[in-house]
Amino acid sequence: MTTLLVLFRRPDGDAEATESFERAYAETHLPLVAGTPGLRALRVKRVSQVLVGETETILVSEMDFDDRPALDAGLASDAMRAAGRNLRSIAPGLATMLVLEAAPDLVPEAWQG
Amino acid sequence: MTTLLVLFRRPDGDAEATESFERAYAETHLPLVAGTPGLRALRVKRVSQVLVGETETILVSEMDFDDRPALDAGLASDAMRAAGRNLRSIAPGLATMLVLEAAPDLVPEAWQG
Repeated sequence: MTTLLVLFRRPDGDAEATESFERAYAETHLPLVAGTPGLRALRVKRVSQVLVGETETILVSEMDFDDRPALDAGLASDAMRAAGRNLRSIAPGLATMLVLEAAPDLVPEAWQG
Repeated sequence: MTTLLVLFRRPDGDAEATESFERAYAETHLPLVAGTPGLRALRVKRVSQVLVGETETILVSEMDFDDRPALDAGLASDAMRAAGRNLRSIAPGLATMLVLEAAPDLVPEAWQG
């Protein structure tokens, strides 16, 4: 399993700026992402509290693919390229995108959810 | 579902410092975390690439609980308190811990994995 993790920072401005970003994200971005070939799961969560450390992250999304080649094919697809253009329009400079790989050498398979 | 997301920064030092941290994390920290009451799932993943933005995050863990009260009970448990003490010893200042809540108003339930 290969996961694309996106961390979104709080937009500059007031609460209305955050609401406006969230609305555009839900209404224009996610429908494009959902059409990505090879996408196995999509999770979107809000940050409700920062317990330790400091971060401006307010929203987190995760997209699961079977493996790295499947992620690369997804990233190269028309759907994901349109989603990328959309993101540069609705959330310029707000996203940090990481590729994650399972670490079965660190955590026993039986524990993983 | 309430999720505890932990982002670990790269330790100061060379590759050996990172290996040493990962070893301590797997051998001393995760066994404590695994004993947390109410823990529904544990996912641990390495960052294999940063596609957009800049971050020193090298490791990500996620712990799922039924809801916020279940997370709070887990955090207050002997297992998690021991895990917290362990973390301050093996990875001082490296962890950012966020509480995440599902956002069903942003993404249709049917899409969520």
